[in-house]
Amino acid sequence: REYLDRTWAASVLKVRSPDTHKGTYGHVLILAGSRGKTGAAVLAALGALCGGAGLVTLASARSLQDLFAGYVPEILTAGLEPETLEAELTPEAAESILELASRMKAVVLGPGFGLSEEAKALSRRLAMELPVPTVLDADALTALAGDLELLKESRGLRIITPHPGEMARLLGKPKDEIQADRLAVARAAAETSGAVVVLKGAATVVASPDGREAVNATGNPGMAQGGMGDVLSGLIGALLAQGYDSFEAACLAVYLHGASGDDLSRRLGPYGFTASEVARNLPRVLRTLSFYGQGL
Amino acid sequence: REYLDRTWAASVLKVRSPDTHKGTYGHVLILAGSRGKTGAAVLAALGALCGGAGLVTLASARSLQDLFAGYVPEILTAGLEPETLEAELTPEAAESILELASRMKAVVLGPGFGLSEEAKALSRRLAMELPVPTVLDADALTALAGDLELLKESRGLRIITPHPGEMARLLGKPKDEIQADRLAVARAAAETSGAVVVLKGAATVVASPDGREAVNATGNPGMAQGGMGDVLSGLIGALLAQGYDSFEAACLAVYLHGASGDDLSRRLGPYGFTASEVARNLPRVLRTLSFYGQGL
Amino acid sequence: REYLDRTWAASVLKVRSPDTHKGTYGHVLILAGSRGKTGAAVLAALGALCGGAGLVTLASARSLQDLFAGYVPEILTAGLEPETLEAELTPEAAESILELASRMKAVVLGPGFGLSEEAKALSRRLAMELPVPTVLDADALTALAGDLELLKESRGLRIITPHPGEMARLLGKPKDEIQADRLAVARAAAETSGAVVVLKGAATVVASPDGREAVNATGNPGMAQGGMGDVLSGLIGALLAQGYDSFEAACLAVYLHGASGDDLSRRLGPYGFTASEVARNLPRVLRTLSFYGQGL
Amino acid sequence: REYLDRTWAASVLKVRSPDTHKGTYGHVLILAGSRGKTGAAVLAALGALCGGAGLVTLASARSLQDLFAGYVPEILTAGLEPETLEAELTPEAAESILELASRMKAVVLGPGFGLSEEAKALSRRLAMELPVPTVLDADALTALAGDLELLKESRGLRIITPHPGEMARLLGKPKDEIQADRLAVARAAAETSGAVVVLKGAATVVASPDGREAVNATGNPGMAQGGMGDVLSGLIGALLAQGYDSFEAACLAVYLHGASGDDLSRRLGPYGFTASEVARNLPRVLRTLSFYGQGL
Repeated sequence: REYLDRTWAASVLKVRSPDTHKGTYGHVLILAGSRGKTGAAVLAALGALCGGAGLVTLASARSLQDLFAGYVPEILTAGLEPETLEAELTPEAAESILELASRMKAVVLGPGFGLSEEAKALSRRLAMELPVPTVLDADALTALAGDLELLKESRGLRIITPHPGEMARLLGKPKDEIQADRLAVARAAAETSGAVVVLKGAATVVASPDGREAVNATGNPGMAQGGMGDVLSGLIGALLAQGYDSFEAACLAVYLHGASGDDLSRRLGPYGFTASEVARNLPRVLRTLSFYGQGL
Repeated sequence: REYLDRTWAASVLKVRSPDTHKGTYGHVLILAGSRGKTGAAVLAALGALCGGAGLVTLASARSLQDLFAGYVPEILTAGLEPETLEAELTPEAAESILELASRMKAVVLGPGFGLSEEAKALSRRLAMELPVPTVLDADALTALAGDLELLKESRGLRIITPHPGEMARLLGKPKDEIQADRLAVARAAAETSGAVVVLKGAATVVASPDGREAVNATGNPGMAQGGMGDVLSGLIGALLAQGYDSFEAACLAVYLHGASGDDLSRRLGPYGFTASEVARNLPRVLRTLSFYGQGL
Repeated sequence: REYLDRTWAASVLKVRSPDTHKGTYGHVLILAGSRGKTGAAVLAALGALCGGAGLVTLASARSLQDLFAGYVPEILTAGLEPETLEAELTPEAAESILELASRMKAVVLGPGFGLSEEAKALSRRLAMELPVPTVLDADALTALAGDLELLKESRGLRIITPHPGEMARLLGKPKDEIQADRLAVARAAAETSGAVVVLKGAATVVASPDGREAVNATGNPGMAQGGMGDVLSGLIGALLAQGYDSFEAACLAVYLHGASGDDLSRRLGPYGFTASEVARNLPRVLRTLSFYGQGL
Repeated sequence: REYLDRTWAASVLKVRSPDTHKGTYGHVLILAGSRGKTGAAVLAALGALCGGAGLVTLASARSLQDLFAGYVPEILTAGLEPETLEAELTPEAAESILELASRMKAVVLGPGFGLSEEAKALSRRLAMELPVPTVLDADALTALAGDLELLKESRGLRIITPHPGEMARLLGKPKDEIQADRLAVARAAAETSGAVVVLKGAATVVASPDGREAVNATGNPGMAQGGMGDVLSGLIGALLAQGYDSFEAACLAVYLHGASGDDLSRRLGPYGFTASEVARNLPRVLRTLSFYGQGL
């Protein structure tokens, strides 16, 4: 069992070779956002960007594309069809999404994706058919409630990132049962789903279907705010795109995300900082890690 | 009578327990904004966010939703109907608002909400019927001009945050009478309305209908600019959502808001800083408070 | 003749009294912006905001209102009609503008206002009829080309802020004649127009029709970029709204604007900083001024 | 052969004379952006702005103009017609673009410009007919694939900025052949095209048709992310507009861009910083350069 502290993180962090370019660090596709929940998509994309992905494309319903294009210029956008009145994508969009995703190194599906029947049906299909490593988060998890075992037949590696409430829905169990033995629950969910499981909370745990497991040492209650989880899912996507295996990507992202929040908590204050700041602060954490053990 | 200085603030500030999540810190609904006064809504939402609310939803007329969605990605948005040509909500929107509010921990009603007859009628109804603790500010106070005693029958706790001009309209008295004995006026208004009263100004005073009262020690004339009050009302909402009682929420928000401005005044300069910066600077003030008395 | 250096600026800077509020510092109306030149309007509004105005309203063609509302939340917006295809206001908008302006402490007219015949006709009428102290800048000056003497009959105090090219057009003289004796030209233009004249350039000069004149000591070639002048005109508006007389408002704004740029040039680098940063940096300059002569 | 390090950069950097104004530093036209790739245009414009251009206009399809206007207020915008459904300009827009460009000091063509047949046809025509010094980047290079020799007949100075993949397409050769002897390839491409060639990569090389050549000493793998190249092309445009000859503009821009990234890498962290930050950090690099050799 890994304990995700600075020593561990420094040991797995890949150093960038000088002779690399944006293609080396992969293209991440963010499938996220619907009317009212647009920020979740932006935060996931920002997490991917500040996590070092070579390219990030945020794909959404077409009516939201210009709104997304106005946020962060480094993020590419794609506008898809058809969509509902609340700018959720519908199952008819599946083919074009799968085609788009086939050219990507990793996908993040779910933040603010929508909870209409149509959005959930599309999300379920994508969870199964996306041909590349995919992070399933937020609404994509709600869409899978009670059907976690389906993921075992999915077409690519999957990482799921439920908080305890989402895990309860995924497993059809009460939330206090989830919290009673978090590591055991994560382990069981990983076995059931064949996915790497990130069970978020005060001490986030990660479990892989191959038996590896980890407990995180970072994070603080100043991060108990909407949007923090979206940054995490984007960050996992960035690490997948940079070539980490799915368990390591999940663990390192969990560590870095919490460490960024810890650094903000120390420097800025105990809370009131935002998820955007957690994303934007990731380079500082990487800097500390890269000096670790060098006596600096 | 409390004197709202650092000692007092440090004594009431709740320390966050590690084992908490965004649900612990509540969901704040901001009912604010109309065409031309959109920024007031954003600033109230930002005050709530940087004040540590778990989630913040900014609800407005539907035609403003995408504009609001483009500001701060951590803020959720809701688009309501029907609306006037100036994007003010009308009384027919009341049912959907009350339904939405019933799932919230606290509401902030009023910044930039609009002063048409329709907006005022809606505001008056909401002031009475919102089932959760609610901050009434700005246009919501103008809508209650002369009718402060109505609030006594409202369905939940209320906090009102008038500046002297708004207080004059609420009580139907000249402004210099308000300023002549601010604490007595606030006390009387609290008795009349059954609401916690925050009478803003050079030394903001707070009075509760249960007899508690307070005078604030923080703030400076660099904060004499549009938008500062909006941040304050959002911040009170955030503290209500985090479980402070309504008098303490009002007092602590008043202290923190002024202390954030004082810190900016010292570090940046005497004026020319903005309300957004007062909101974004709140973590620093919380940091100072959390070290207070620890010899640091 | 004043030399606008730190000693001078510290001697005229008004210290804010604790017992003041946003009403004390006035409401500035920015009449600016058309399609393609929207940023000029935003920068003028930002100059007014960071210069300490109590309230700032940016009024434009209605089709630009939502765009302007998306920039800086502290800035109120107004949408006016009718407008041209390029979102320039037309003479038919004059009545509503004059009505709006009558409730303001100061007006800034011209940045990005447009150069169509319709926009120029409106601008000329407003230059004459605006009933409050008004800064005329950029397109408002081009609209007055050759007719500077008209201003003598205008309904309120006027400050004009031409760069040498605009001054050449105002006076119908070649630009090198303007530059040959800048102070004499400014003095003559002040006499002709009855307005305070700010002739911008390497050493900006200010001349008042009452005979006062000044030469500025601040500023640097890193400020040779689009948008800097817009910040200056907004800043003059802010100082007018705060109760400075028109010559002092012009002089102090010219000093502060240059000093902010000088501070950025020293701290950030010799150029590549932007007009927004010059505006946002104004508090630091005010801070230095307020400590001046106190041995700090 | 020049080695582009700090000594070299300090030796060519022009010091700004106090008696200069925005006209001195030129007006740069950015022809860039289409739906989904809007950020590339913004980043090129930001590179030009932070690189010290006197004025920057971002020209795009009309339907994107308001989106672009909402980003950075210092950037002017122009809306052109006609356009495709993906907001790419079509060949019929050529006349108005050429007319607009004739009033500019330099042009940057290509970032996010679009790859439809229509956009490519327009791009090819503009590459030939633009009457001022022009940087060809990104989609403008793809549009010239296999036809590099055409540029020899173009109407003004040209700088091309391919990464190895784009160079491979330009020359119709495999990418590993490009990388095998980068300087020889750049030299040959410069001879073929008559353009200054910037072959990007781990050690960017620059070759001029007059035989000058250079290898860059700055840059790091934290810059391996989308958008970085857009900032570079805008920065070259800014230096052209400031009067550097095309080889020096290319070399100095390459140096400054890499040095800005190096400074961020040291101060913020090894990666996770963004292209916007590389642009915004340019003044710091200019500051270091301007102190160089002064014993400071």
